[in-house]
Amino acid sequence: MKFVTYVHEIKESIGILENNNVFDIKDLLKKMGEKDIPGTMQKFIEYLDEDKSHKMELFLNNRVVEPVSLDSVKLKAPIPYPRRNVFCLGKNYEEHAREIKMTQISGNGIPEVPIYFTKVASPAVGTGDYIKFSTEVTKQVDYEAELGVIMGKDGADIKLEDAEKYIFGYTIINDVSARDLQGKHVQWFKGKSLDTFCPMGPCIVYKDEIPFPVELDIKCMVNGEVRQNSNTKNLIFDIPHIISDLSRGLTLKAGDIISTGTPSGVGMGFEPVKVLKNGDVVECRIEKVGSLVNHVVETL
Amino acid sequence: MKFVTYVHEIKESIGILENNNVFDIKDLLKKMGEKDIPGTMQKFIEYLDEDKSHKMELFLNNRVVEPVSLDSVKLKAPIPYPRRNVFCLGKNYEEHAREIKMTQISGNGIPEVPIYFTKVASPAVGTGDYIKFSTEVTKQVDYEAELGVIMGKDGADIKLEDAEKYIFGYTIINDVSARDLQGKHVQWFKGKSLDTFCPMGPCIVYKDEIPFPVELDIKCMVNGEVRQNSNTKNLIFDIPHIISDLSRGLTLKAGDIISTGTPSGVGMGFEPVKVLKNGDVVECRIEKVGSLVNHVVETL
Repeated sequence: MKFVTYVHEIKESIGILENNNVFDIKDLLKKMGEKDIPGTMQKFIEYLDEDKSHKMELFLNNRVVEPVSLDSVKLKAPIPYPRRNVFCLGKNYEEHAREIKMTQISGNGIPEVPIYFTKVASPAVGTGDYIKFSTEVTKQVDYEAELGVIMGKDGADIKLEDAEKYIFGYTIINDVSARDLQGKHVQWFKGKSLDTFCPMGPCIVYKDEIPFPVELDIKCMVNGEVRQNSNTKNLIFDIPHIISDLSRGLTLKAGDIISTGTPSGVGMGFEPVKVLKNGDVVECRIEKVGSLVNHVVETL
Repeated sequence: MKFVTYVHEIKESIGILENNNVFDIKDLLKKMGEKDIPGTMQKFIEYLDEDKSHKMELFLNNRVVEPVSLDSVKLKAPIPYPRRNVFCLGKNYEEHAREIKMTQISGNGIPEVPIYFTKVASPAVGTGDYIKFSTEVTKQVDYEAELGVIMGKDGADIKLEDAEKYIFGYTIINDVSARDLQGKHVQWFKGKSLDTFCPMGPCIVYKDEIPFPVELDIKCMVNGEVRQNSNTKNLIFDIPHIISDLSRGLTLKAGDIISTGTPSGVGMGFEPVKVLKNGDVVECRIEKVGSLVNHVVETL
């Protein structure tokens, strides 16, 4: 199943996306006779387990609720207000680590341990929304298509072999980056955290649809031109490694989002660099997850 | 007024700390005839304005509610679960920037622009709580006494001269740091974010008790030995500068916490270095705010 947060006729809800239909999760759970109906994606993540998901699929196949058309809804980021900043990885694809080595942002080459930083997503924006920035704040905005892993339950010191059990599902994140700020402020946080700089979506794919280990094609197109084109099997530190290492001494929680890093082909990797500009359309696409499309708006 | 989050007879509430008494804020607001009573510090921050604070003081002076003794309550961090990671500044006192220059963590000396990173505080721990870590995860834990600024309302692109108006109050933060992780992972986030590594408290002092510009003595003692001893007037980037610069293109929100950086005297600045060890008592003290005391526990 693919889970979405959406607005239909001014009412925000959570739903299941199937082909071009959206089924209201709350209505479905009521039909199933559930008592404590989760009202947000965060609550739903805490609520769902495999038994419940099978039951949901069964009821869904029996069409106990009527869907609305995808065309009639506005998709938001699946988790518009994450409970904590998005956990991000830097330089987690080898080719990308090489291309970025040349710039002033970091001269360390291939990392020996994961590089973690965070990104404010408050709110994370959805597909179709704007990436909007003032040219007085930054003149060097870049895209980064990334696979986002959504945690399904709380855990610390998670073992490599247990990591899969802690995953709720997968989404796409565009880790939009103001390269000039990222470099200037030494630590990357500010350049990663401008308003609208965390597009996320279009949905969260439930874990049972993605076989482990996760090997998915990942792409980024700007105005239709393919800039990034790789596969998540090329991650330097794979998903179990990240979950296990990040959770050492740090309790990860259900609903936490880990953005696993971006492949080569970012704008900063080109000579001359290719920055995002007013009117650009950025599409991040991941196999089996979908397509996250955002329009760039520059203001003064 | 000094605001606290506390537990009394297993019930968590928010209160006003006055000498050695704690007055329940919710009871007080009920006596004032208020309708929508905020139940958490976050809601209270969003609720309070200067008129309401004057009215609270008036009712408080008339003793319309009976206090409980400070001895009979457990103080928690004033905001145990911040809505976003704590915003932190690195190397924001000149002497500290110099002492840390010598280490492997960063070789950049005095920063020309603020260095921002974030810290997970989920939960932030209160005064009296443990700083607890496994020696398998880190062997180099350090203290950093810092003044925390609590935002009182939302704002982006805040002007220098308006910054004061956006402040709700002040607290103390011990930006506990695993120096080995901080260095190893390049970006500082992980080394700053282990569980229990964000002691905060004992209270939030409302802004009207601290004249602007903020010039407060700040100290850190380990087992009674003074290690850090400075004044917040020595910040390289002062509070208006931080709020103005950080909010450029990034909306700060009521309840956000900004930890303004630590003065010289951290354990890593000594030769040989002084790391925190099992049984140590760390006290961070800031004039007019109070004292934040935590006990160090090492586990295997």
